Amino acid sequence: MSNQSLSFIHDSLPQKIRFGFGEASANLLEEVRTRNAQSVMVIAGEPEMPIAKQVASEIEVAVWHSDVVMHVPIETAQAAREVAVDNQVDLLVCVGGGSTTGLAKAVALETGIPIVAVPTTYAGSEATNVWGLTEEKRKTTGVDIKVLPETVIYDSKLTLSLPVEMSVASGLNGMAHCVDSLWAPKADPINAALAGEGIRALSAGLPKIVEDSQSIEGRDEALYGAYLSAVSFASAGSGLHHKICHVLGGTFNLPHAQTHATILPYVLAFNAPYAPGAEQRMAAAFGTQTGLEGLQQLREKVNAPARLSDYGFSADGIPEAVSIVLEKVPANNPREVTEENFTQLLTAALNGDDPAILSN
Amino acid sequence: MSNQSLSFIHDSLPQKIRFGFGEASANLLEEVRTRNAQSVMVIAGEPEMPIAKQVASEIEVAVWHSDVVMHVPIETAQAAREVAVDNQVDLLVCVGGGSTTGLAKAVALETGIPIVAVPTTYAGSEATNVWGLTEEKRKTTGVDIKVLPETVIYDSKLTLSLPVEMSVASGLNGMAHCVDSLWAPKADPINAALAGEGIRALSAGLPKIVEDSQSIEGRDEALYGAYLSAVSFASAGSGLHHKICHVLGGTFNLPHAQTHATILPYVLAFNAPYAPGAEQRMAAAFGTQTGLEGLQQLREKVNAPARLSDYGFSADGIPEAVSIVLEKVPANNPREVTEENFTQLLTAALNGDDPAILSN
Repeated sequence: MSNQSLSFIHDSLPQKIRFGFGEASANLLEEVRTRNAQSVMVIAGEPEMPIAKQVASEIEVAVWHSDVVMHVPIETAQAAREVAVDNQVDLLVCVGGGSTTGLAKAVALETGIPIVAVPTTYAGSEATNVWGLTEEKRKTTGVDIKVLPETVIYDSKLTLSLPVEMSVASGLNGMAHCVDSLWAPKADPINAALAGEGIRALSAGLPKIVEDSQSIEGRDEALYGAYLSAVSFASAGSGLHHKICHVLGGTFNLPHAQTHATILPYVLAFNAPYAPGAEQRMAAAFGTQTGLEGLQQLREKVNAPARLSDYGFSADGIPEAVSIVLEKVPANNPREVTEENFTQLLTAALNGDDPAILSN
Repeated sequence: MSNQSLSFIHDSLPQKIRFGFGEASANLLEEVRTRNAQSVMVIAGEPEMPIAKQVASEIEVAVWHSDVVMHVPIETAQAAREVAVDNQVDLLVCVGGGSTTGLAKAVALETGIPIVAVPTTYAGSEATNVWGLTEEKRKTTGVDIKVLPETVIYDSKLTLSLPVEMSVASGLNGMAHCVDSLWAPKADPINAALAGEGIRALSAGLPKIVEDSQSIEGRDEALYGAYLSAVSFASAGSGLHHKICHVLGGTFNLPHAQTHATILPYVLAFNAPYAPGAEQRMAAAFGTQTGLEGLQQLREKVNAPARLSDYGFSADGIPEAVSIVLEKVPANNPREVTEENFTQLLTAALNGDDPAILSN
């Protein structure tokens, strides 16, 4: 905490979390009973259907809907809405990853039907009030309380089949959400406390999953950490890290997960000396002397990607990347970003140099 | 985190926090504008009226209501409701401590009119969905989302006149809420993360207030910590500490604040070795090796009460207190409470012995 007075606005969103390994079907039954839902629509993509059938095995389902498409095309959303209306659906249950949750949100946006979400990945969409729709390849996003699932049922048993590599990539993406939310535009101490808890949980859980993909403790911690990363990121907004990754992904076509995992320690090392509050939180959450030390220990344990040069980025791209990113730096970033120091950051990330050189 | 799988239910309540030193009137104006409120009722007890007038200086007030009585007698509530209905009030603004917030809640309970709360103490009622009413000396309490203030405006400038002694007592009461919520019946990791943040903020803020009652930083941290203590306590429920204090207050008539402040280190020392997760959180929040060390350092800095014998409790009372408390111990308390070890706890608290003797 700085010497300045504390000034912030924080919105806590209403949501019930039911967390329990192997408890998804019992928890869903409880939700349907409590709400006295009469016509339940279960949304799950084809590959998610077997899990969905199992999760919904104890309830009566009025309609199963499996027409799920990435990025929620408007036609897909419209079709699902019609199914919901035709069946007088009074509860949407989505079982799956981000696209499935996204479709349920699109239905809720127009119909106001409440959602109970049962996530099977670390996407985190279930914990936010953000919706997205794609029309003629253009994605529109918005914020509406109607799309926030009223209840989320987390059951890490459903995540046991997530491949280790994908779990790590997705978990490190969550870690990036947590860290970046410490200095994002709407950073506030409440977000930061939740982000710190997310860092703690993810850094505890991911190595256990690498050691044993069936580790219940590791799966619990990673899923719980992914939830917190979504809550803190949705509330705090995109910080420097996400601005950089957005440019590297959009303009240079670098792969999403690897870019996030590679860039994070460099942004952390760059900002941390100028953000003592964030540094203290990260160190406490990792249980290490500094945030960088904690993140690097974790990255080593999970064998995280190390340099951008492995993913098609080269020194030629640096000047353009620098000039685009410089225009997008959040005004409240703790450290001033200049052509010089940001060129140094990208060069270090390109080559996989020790991030600590940026902490000066 | 234990080796067991993680199982919990957590309700996040919807609330907007506007936190800012000296910003209460601007924030209230913003709330009234955003809501397009047409008939605002300001509730504030007589002693709070001058502050309320200042906070509401930028808005139009339809009706001022100062008939505030401790514990919200039903007649007082009924009178306030009538005033609200007669004036077609569409926004309740309460400025003051727990009794004032309590009256606004009583009005909201029956009328559904939204509340914007502007707390001037560390009571914390503004952050909960709990209401209380007193009828013929009997207090009834309940939980209803309607009574949760939609927005809380925290302005620590309004707390500068809180006497240091009262600030410390009230702040230590908040600390007890945070610590006890780590092992209370509905303890869960989300509560625990918020409680840890509350411990951090209170332990940072209270000593600054003792050093300088006008410390903005100290006042900010204490007010923010008190908010978190209310959130985590309302969500987690009463743990062992609160059960003990309830008995000592109710049956033995010991003073509330002093009892809480005295008992807390003993309960902490008693439970912590059996609650490694809670111990880790407390130590991290205090920035010390153990939770007890952090609490004791804080208690020394703020000159906290040290022994129950100073407040009218004596060894004769121990057997009765033990037998009543033993019936009320929460089933999930991390350490089994026996006649023997609890007698030892109370004896130590009576005499002001080193709490560390209980950690065995």
